Amino acid sequence: MKNTFGHNVSVTLFGESHGASVGAVVDGLAPGLPVDEDFIAVMLTRRRPQGRISTARQEADRFVIESGVFEGKTTGTPVCIRIPNEDTRSADYTAQRRLVRPGHADYTAACKYHGYEDYRGGGHFSGRVTAALVAAGALVIPALAAKGIRVATHVSRLGGVEDRPFENLCVDMDRLAAGGFPVLDPSAEAAMTERILNARENKDSVGGVLETVVTGLPVGVGEPWFDTVEGVLSHALFSIPAIKGVEFGDGFALADTTGSAANDAFRVVDGRIVTVTNHNGGINGGITNSMPVVVRCAVKPTPTIGLCQDSVDLIDGTNAQLEAKGRHDPCIVHRAAVVADCVVALALCDLLAGRYGTDWLGAV
Amino acid sequence: MKNTFGHNVSVTLFGESHGASVGAVVDGLAPGLPVDEDFIAVMLTRRRPQGRISTARQEADRFVIESGVFEGKTTGTPVCIRIPNEDTRSADYTAQRRLVRPGHADYTAACKYHGYEDYRGGGHFSGRVTAALVAAGALVIPALAAKGIRVATHVSRLGGVEDRPFENLCVDMDRLAAGGFPVLDPSAEAAMTERILNARENKDSVGGVLETVVTGLPVGVGEPWFDTVEGVLSHALFSIPAIKGVEFGDGFALADTTGSAANDAFRVVDGRIVTVTNHNGGINGGITNSMPVVVRCAVKPTPTIGLCQDSVDLIDGTNAQLEAKGRHDPCIVHRAAVVADCVVALALCDLLAGRYGTDWLGAV
Amino acid sequence: MKNTFGHNVSVTLFGESHGASVGAVVDGLAPGLPVDEDFIAVMLTRRRPQGRISTARQEADRFVIESGVFEGKTTGTPVCIRIPNEDTRSADYTAQRRLVRPGHADYTAACKYHGYEDYRGGGHFSGRVTAALVAAGALVIPALAAKGIRVATHVSRLGGVEDRPFENLCVDMDRLAAGGFPVLDPSAEAAMTERILNARENKDSVGGVLETVVTGLPVGVGEPWFDTVEGVLSHALFSIPAIKGVEFGDGFALADTTGSAANDAFRVVDGRIVTVTNHNGGINGGITNSMPVVVRCAVKPTPTIGLCQDSVDLIDGTNAQLEAKGRHDPCIVHRAAVVADCVVALALCDLLAGRYGTDWLGAV
Amino acid sequence: MKNTFGHNVSVTLFGESHGASVGAVVDGLAPGLPVDEDFIAVMLTRRRPQGRISTARQEADRFVIESGVFEGKTTGTPVCIRIPNEDTRSADYTAQRRLVRPGHADYTAACKYHGYEDYRGGGHFSGRVTAALVAAGALVIPALAAKGIRVATHVSRLGGVEDRPFENLCVDMDRLAAGGFPVLDPSAEAAMTERILNARENKDSVGGVLETVVTGLPVGVGEPWFDTVEGVLSHALFSIPAIKGVEFGDGFALADTTGSAANDAFRVVDGRIVTVTNHNGGINGGITNSMPVVVRCAVKPTPTIGLCQDSVDLIDGTNAQLEAKGRHDPCIVHRAAVVADCVVALALCDLLAGRYGTDWLGAV
Repeated sequence: MKNTFGHNVSVTLFGESHGASVGAVVDGLAPGLPVDEDFIAVMLTRRRPQGRISTARQEADRFVIESGVFEGKTTGTPVCIRIPNEDTRSADYTAQRRLVRPGHADYTAACKYHGYEDYRGGGHFSGRVTAALVAAGALVIPALAAKGIRVATHVSRLGGVEDRPFENLCVDMDRLAAGGFPVLDPSAEAAMTERILNARENKDSVGGVLETVVTGLPVGVGEPWFDTVEGVLSHALFSIPAIKGVEFGDGFALADTTGSAANDAFRVVDGRIVTVTNHNGGINGGITNSMPVVVRCAVKPTPTIGLCQDSVDLIDGTNAQLEAKGRHDPCIVHRAAVVADCVVALALCDLLAGRYGTDWLGAV
Repeated sequence: MKNTFGHNVSVTLFGESHGASVGAVVDGLAPGLPVDEDFIAVMLTRRRPQGRISTARQEADRFVIESGVFEGKTTGTPVCIRIPNEDTRSADYTAQRRLVRPGHADYTAACKYHGYEDYRGGGHFSGRVTAALVAAGALVIPALAAKGIRVATHVSRLGGVEDRPFENLCVDMDRLAAGGFPVLDPSAEAAMTERILNARENKDSVGGVLETVVTGLPVGVGEPWFDTVEGVLSHALFSIPAIKGVEFGDGFALADTTGSAANDAFRVVDGRIVTVTNHNGGINGGITNSMPVVVRCAVKPTPTIGLCQDSVDLIDGTNAQLEAKGRHDPCIVHRAAVVADCVVALALCDLLAGRYGTDWLGAV
Repeated sequence: MKNTFGHNVSVTLFGESHGASVGAVVDGLAPGLPVDEDFIAVMLTRRRPQGRISTARQEADRFVIESGVFEGKTTGTPVCIRIPNEDTRSADYTAQRRLVRPGHADYTAACKYHGYEDYRGGGHFSGRVTAALVAAGALVIPALAAKGIRVATHVSRLGGVEDRPFENLCVDMDRLAAGGFPVLDPSAEAAMTERILNARENKDSVGGVLETVVTGLPVGVGEPWFDTVEGVLSHALFSIPAIKGVEFGDGFALADTTGSAANDAFRVVDGRIVTVTNHNGGINGGITNSMPVVVRCAVKPTPTIGLCQDSVDLIDGTNAQLEAKGRHDPCIVHRAAVVADCVVALALCDLLAGRYGTDWLGAV
Repeated sequence: MKNTFGHNVSVTLFGESHGASVGAVVDGLAPGLPVDEDFIAVMLTRRRPQGRISTARQEADRFVIESGVFEGKTTGTPVCIRIPNEDTRSADYTAQRRLVRPGHADYTAACKYHGYEDYRGGGHFSGRVTAALVAAGALVIPALAAKGIRVATHVSRLGGVEDRPFENLCVDMDRLAAGGFPVLDPSAEAAMTERILNARENKDSVGGVLETVVTGLPVGVGEPWFDTVEGVLSHALFSIPAIKGVEFGDGFALADTTGSAANDAFRVVDGRIVTVTNHNGGINGGITNSMPVVVRCAVKPTPTIGLCQDSVDLIDGTNAQLEAKGRHDPCIVHRAAVVADCVVALALCDLLAGRYGTDWLGAV
């Protein structure tokens, strides 16, 4: 189960950038979950290239639900969602077969698959496959919301520009749910956009940090060893291409502090046990403590850039130079925000189903 | 398989701090691997509390191989290694039942297990269970070495003190393999020890960062989605108690750079394709590229501290205050270095066995 | 991973009888396996309804390879094969919603899925989903054959009529591979067909036994506990609807014999260790011994019959009577033979990949 | 996870016949289940060799609970139960290294493990490992009973002697729960015992059939494809050494009947939907229908016999003859009854936990 994630709620991905379609099979969903095709479309739109700051490849991301949905609700059997590829220009990619792009999977894929991989547009490694992840996540996000569990991601940093931190979670999550460039401070959008356009102009690219918050999780989800909440979420999140770091709560900053500063004191507030601070990101001992789960992902700059780079020619086995042509993104951080939402939502559904059973997500 | 990790080579953990024993079952090992009991003992010693900078709990960590080893070699069937608990003082922990320690799993465990958990000394959440992980890892590290794959971890930061980065990998890994305080710069040991003793004096604790490097991995290990090298290693590493962040290569620093600076150019050197830099930590598209794999873990300060902290009384449901008595560590970063080695080694064995089959690790 | 099978080579099924399509995602295939679309079509034809002895539902079983195949060969990434549904007549099935068919999954599905299941034509429980299994199996059968591993199934009994046992395996397997009604004794076809037509005339149905043989397997495949060859194959085979028994070698007949008669003596023949008899069906201690693997499946008579049967009305909660209308098969034993081939082939690929690694199936 | 079974409730086996101990780690149990050590001891006694009809190897089967139980109840974390080996006479087995026993795993183990296996007394393939399965099953059987789910197995045939079928399930299951030779008709014990003693006298062995029934299962457990109840139970049951066939309901007899005779008509009785007959063994479409689950296992005659048999000498590579010395059973059918109970109970716990969540088994 190499490209499958989850035991009780599982997602299996398939598809290549220039093949017939990309898609996902989601199994283990509770029966009776309303499937909102408009919401799926909205989520796919958020992931789509956006004007001048993205690749020129434009697709409607028309999706087809092949199975597992009947009369607008999940049946409880596997849901296959398929997104046909449309705007493919394979001619752009023939040079790529021999000249491997630094920072990209071209070289490792050629070695792993012995040259049989579909190299066009990154093939199965293409960020396009994340459209399937988004469609899958969009199936479960409304169901989680109906149980009081919300997920939201903002770009906390991009090209060196900082967004403000979460303040009033409820209001901030509403703002992010409304769509648009995923930041909390409206002025950050302009500054970040400028960095992206600069990068494009320089034939270069920029990275950033995504911060995801989950509210409403019950206490007691996750396991002490291996299937910790941190372990399960990070396992899934590192699938998002370009993510090279994952941290929870204060994460790496905790390394430089003391126990007295890092510990979150418990208090009884309105008859409910809470922590006064949330340095641990809602997780103690691998298990949710009912405070918001906070996870941040480092997104590296897109590896495909127009600048001339040193590379090798796989066929000649010689040194060579590469200037990527084709269409590519100078930044994918903002597009990846909705992917992070969806990956986190799917991984949590698996943990929740393991603890409470399959039907829990659908129970009223 | 909540407390089991791995598909082809798997580890199942069991045990509580004050129960009969802790241990691990390792399945899927190639037959014929030499089992070096002295090496296991050495590795366990590295994890053990060390003098003034550690807890006063002292155990010989005598281990028993219950199965899977015959005439000094693995049989290919499950190996159970068990480490009996010895120096347990359960009386120290009775107050803990009601007063949950901030930053620790006391509260989440009580909720998850409805009060049936073995609360003594952290029970199944105790760092003591990592002794079983170390014993399991010590089974496979020599076998990996025989295939040219080496793993080494140093404390790259502790209480704000930095160790120097890896320079000559071969020499540096030899130094770490020789044991002692796991740093590369000998002067770092004294400075770090001082920070730990300071923390102890202040009834507080300190954290740090571990950096693990793996050399000799073949190209092509890992999967494009979900079972990426990053995903699999992070999933396992977050099991080590107190780890709150995992990053690969330049990790979070990549978020603030550009593609042209982050990409690792390919070159042919001595007929072999290498990258000139290693910002991506030996992994492209989730798959090894034959360069050293570099992973860093943020270790939070030990949550159990002697200072007075706000907490709640689970039985009365009221606010309360807690001053941890009992024996505890003012820092576990240096003790966790060998645990990181072992967890990384075990997770890699699983990925390697998935790609090359069970016998590969034992083949000459 | 409820509707997924296999760890190293895995199959995920999706689809309903009257939904958009049925299909499978096959992951873990070696890269470079030639994909023979004509062979897939031939295999699908064998599963299709056949003239007077089958249901009147007729579909071309046009299939689409959505991913994982490039320039006629597997890429090593997930292969999604999709078979659009065509000849669906949902009107036939509206009564079925309330009147559950004895012996069928109507009642258990309604309970499990709380009434949200797609009830049309059996929905996800429909034998139609086996078309996806066949397409998936047809991907790997030629690759197994290239490694010297052949799989063949004959109807050893149907409606009380016996086929002759395997004699010359090589010749018999060739005969079965050539297609046609899957029996070894040509005269059995006429007798079996007559039983099926009789059953149809009586508005009833008949069952039978399938016998599958696998030659060319290396010694040493399978695990001693749980993932025995018997356990893994039976797990997969019981997915074929209507299968209610699975036995290996002499199976249930071994219960009435003695050790001296049941044991297969070892002999050295032409420098190779073989067994003189094969009562154990090529498996000792859960592990292949290089002799042919022999497995038999009991197929119950098709539950959907035209005769009047006692049932209940799920909506009224009252007793009722049911005469199935719609299109249905008086026998599916002969159609299931190719499904057994494919299921066995896929399960063996998983075991082989676990032992020898992913690439083994594709290596020359 | 080769020697691990289950996703939500899992069992990992370890141990060799002549190693330090055999044991099991059971993970995923609900917290708070009472652990009845006397009951575990009783169950182990049922599996133990019994007087003249069994091997002369006699062990007290003293067991140690290493973890996961606190103050007499499960904690919810992994339970390791270990059974030290005591009466081992390794000298008996040195010849076995070269002369492989027909029908046993000696040859396949030697090939699979390249000669590194612990060959003494069958090593990891020994029936002794089933003691660990029994101890594991004895943990959950009382918890299932507390939820109204009972499991019982009788020897329905042995050496050609038939026991009577189940009649009054409640009374019959009480009878079997009381212990003694596991038959329903008291006169069957004498006849079966005679067959076993005859076999022993002839230096031969006999086999038989076990029939297990499970009552009280809720409707809706199991999955339509792959993780069918039949698939999951058979996967686990084929782990019991010597089992070569598994059938559900009328099993292979269904192959020779008609749909009208095989279907179980639904009726409303006392406001509850039941089936009038139970030819399908409580399972429709892979899912429980609330009727008793009925499964039968074919147990082959013990392969180790005293008669002279043709074999090969693995070291010389020549034909040879073998007369097994050492201690062995002329029949293990009656001893395997309690093993079948335990394996079925464990596999059902996994399916139930998948559907209803981890805590369900412990909820009041």
